[in-house]
Formats: sequence, C-alpha cells, structure tokens
Amino acid sequence: MRIDIITVIPEMLESPLGCSILKRACNKGLAEIHVHNLRDYSTNKHRKVDDYPFGGEAGMVIQVEPVDRCITALKSQRSYDEVIFTAPDGERFTQKTANSLSLLDNIIILCGHYKGIDYRIRQHLITREISVGDYVLTGGELPAAIITDAIVRLIPGAIGDEQSALADSFQDNLLEGPIYTRPAVYNGWEVPPVLLSGHEARIAEWKHQQAVERTQRLRPDLLD
Amino acid sequence: MRIDIITVIPEMLESPLGCSILKRACNKGLAEIHVHNLRDYSTNKHRKVDDYPFGGEAGMVIQVEPVDRCITALKSQRSYDEVIFTAPDGERFTQKTANSLSLLDNIIILCGHYKGIDYRIRQHLITREISVGDYVLTGGELPAAIITDAIVRLIPGAIGDEQSALADSFQDNLLEGPIYTRPAVYNGWEVPPVLLSGHEARIAEWKHQQAVERTQRLRPDLLD
Repeated sequence: MRIDIITVIPEMLESPLGCSILKRACNKGLAEIHVHNLRDYSTNKHRKVDDYPFGGEAGMVIQVEPVDRCITALKSQRSYDEVIFTAPDGERFTQKTANSLSLLDNIIILCGHYKGIDYRIRQHLITREISVGDYVLTGGELPAAIITDAIVRLIPGAIGDEQSALADSFQDNLLEGPIYTRPAVYNGWEVPPVLLSGHEARIAEWKHQQAVERTQRLRPDLLD
Repeated sequence: MRIDIITVIPEMLESPLGCSILKRACNKGLAEIHVHNLRDYSTNKHRKVDDYPFGGEAGMVIQVEPVDRCITALKSQRSYDEVIFTAPDGERFTQKTANSLSLLDNIIILCGHYKGIDYRIRQHLITREISVGDYVLTGGELPAAIITDAIVRLIPGAIGDEQSALADSFQDNLLEGPIYTRPAVYNGWEVPPVLLSGHEARIAEWKHQQAVERTQRLRPDLLD
C-alpha cells in the first residue's frame, strides 16, 4: 500500500517513519510512505501556506489553495481510496479502522495544523476525518504517524511474527492478560506458578481467564 | 517540568521531540525532556533487555531488571510525581489528563514494547498506565511523544499565543466551530458572509452556535 502524508513540518515525521518496523516494511516493499512538504505547493514567494482567520481569532490557519494544489497533483498520478484529515473532532481511530485502512491501496493523510485549516478543505477535499483521541496536539504529524504505524504493522509480513499481531489487544475484543519473562523471581516478585508448570492446556485456560477478567475490570465496554 | 522517557528505540523520538513547539519550549527552559535508552541499563553483554514469555507465546517481552535499574537510577536523583506506562489497556488519555499532568514537576514515561513488558513492572514500578487510544502500535514511543506534546504545549509560554490553547477543542467541552482564511472565494467555495461582516457580536454568536451545533452532531457525549 502507498501512504502520502502532507504536512508543514516534514522533519517531524523523519524518525517515526524511519525506524523499526515501518522502515522494515518499506524496505521489504510492503509499504511506500511519501512525505510532502505543503510549502512546496505554495504560490507565495515566501512559501507561506497559512493566514489569519476571518472573523478575528488567535492563531494561523492553513489555506485552501496549497492543499488543493498538492492533493490535485497526487490525484493526477494515481487514484486514492481515502483523503484523511487528522482532526480532534473526527471519527475516533480504533483498531477496526486500522484493520480496514490496511486493506486499501492508496491513501493521503493531511496533517492538521495546531490552530486549524480552512474549513473548505474539509468540506471539499477530505473524504474522512480521523481523531486519534480526545486531546489537542501541536499538529497532526504525530496522529499521522500513529495511523501509519497502526496500519502498516497489520500488512502481512510487516512484523516478523504474524501470531503476534493476531494476539493483540482489541483484535478479539479482549485485552491481553499479563505476560512475564525471566527471571521467575526478581526482587521477591514471583511469576504465577501456572506459567512455569509446562501444562499447556492449563496455561491456555489461565491466560484466557486473565484476559476476560482484565477486560471486565478495565474495559467492560469492549464486551458489549 | 521535567519528563524522562525510557525506551528501547530512542532514535524514534528524535524528530518528534526535536521539532517545533516542543523544541522551543525546551530552549526557553519551560520543559526538560530526557530520553533514556533502556539498553544502557542491561547487565547483559549484548545489551539485551527482552526475553521469551513464560508459558510460550509469540513475541519478546521486556524484562523487569533493566527497567527497575533505570527507574531506580532516576529516582535516586530526584523525586517523581508519576511513573507512567503507555499501554493500550491503560486509562484513556484525555485533555483533562493532559491538563493535570502539565502541572506536575517530574514524570517518567516508560514506552511499552510492541509485544509487552513483564507484568511485575506494571505491578511494582508503574504508578499510572495511560492509553492514547484503542489501537495497537509497534511500540510506546509514539504514545510517549503524544503525551509529551499534549502536556508541554499547555505550559504557559510554550505556544506563542495563549489564547490559542484556551480556545482548543475539549478545553470547554465544545468542539471548535469552522474556521476560514483568505481568499474569501476559492474555486467557487465561499466563506460564510457573517465572518466578513466585521460585526463582532454577530461573529461571536455565529461561532458559538457553530461550535454547539458541531458538538451536538459529532460528539454529543461531550455535552453530557
């Protein structure tokens, strides 16, 4: 799949997209991620892409023209399944959204600006508005990185071990139960004996019980 | 305030923490952000910090010892208000959480590993588990960056214009209304005439109406 990210701070995405599993997925040819500097689509000689809001208010607002020019340029080269805008008031991003986006071919993600973008962009150029959570950030770059990370890791082959993605929290509407690794005792803190028993069926049962108990206690809404 | 982030992929945090408003806040002395490589606290000659889970399962699990050593070293230098772990099953991170965390002096954020960490870390060393949303990521680095970004921008002086943080979505339980900037007409798409009227009271009323209408339509839960 191909993901095109449009931002005014491309350097902010360098290390999140250049590390670890995302980098490996790109190197393996499983994903292609392109970051575009919105300023390259400005017609202003100072490469300005924002201006004061109409009606007076604090902060600067991204203008419709450079965004339109950038999206139009991308669309002239291939067709896109979604043009996503990262906004705190968008639909909430969940594992289910990540699953469905990971099946698409080409998507654009426009990073929100900390004050906002001209509303006409949202009305005419965006197909989907997504919020990664109920909090305000300095920009949409981290949300774009979150969305990219969550979907690219689901592409078969992206993480070494596909079992691992299948056992994730949320994939079966259960939180994962507690996990432990060596040593069996540290600082007097012990691993539950059943995990050291070697009895596979009993271990599997214990894990399932723990997952259900944790979900009931912490996130009963997932069981509805 | 001071934020210490513990991670196995310190390079992933470089650009999110080195850019824009976060960098400026650090340069101004408003915040101090330190990233620690968990591998520096390994006693293993290969700097290994993870191992296979007890009870057999896919993926590697962060061990308790290096985390304990790192947190103990930090705590020997100053006291910490919270030791946060980024986990998909933690309490949900909201603007309210960001507000309260921004008032603290020193916090530690331990980045989750994509498979998990030894549960004894969560039982004995962590004071607060926070989830930035119901989705699974390759690690806790992006959530740590999100939490850091959301709280540092709230520190007075961090963003140029304090009005702007006050007018954010969620700060008054209302989503922001639409905003527009120049030109008044683009591609036949028009700015609502009231915003061009120059009539301050009418503009303020329109903005409030729009914010209420948007919140009722998109996020009625915020009004409960």
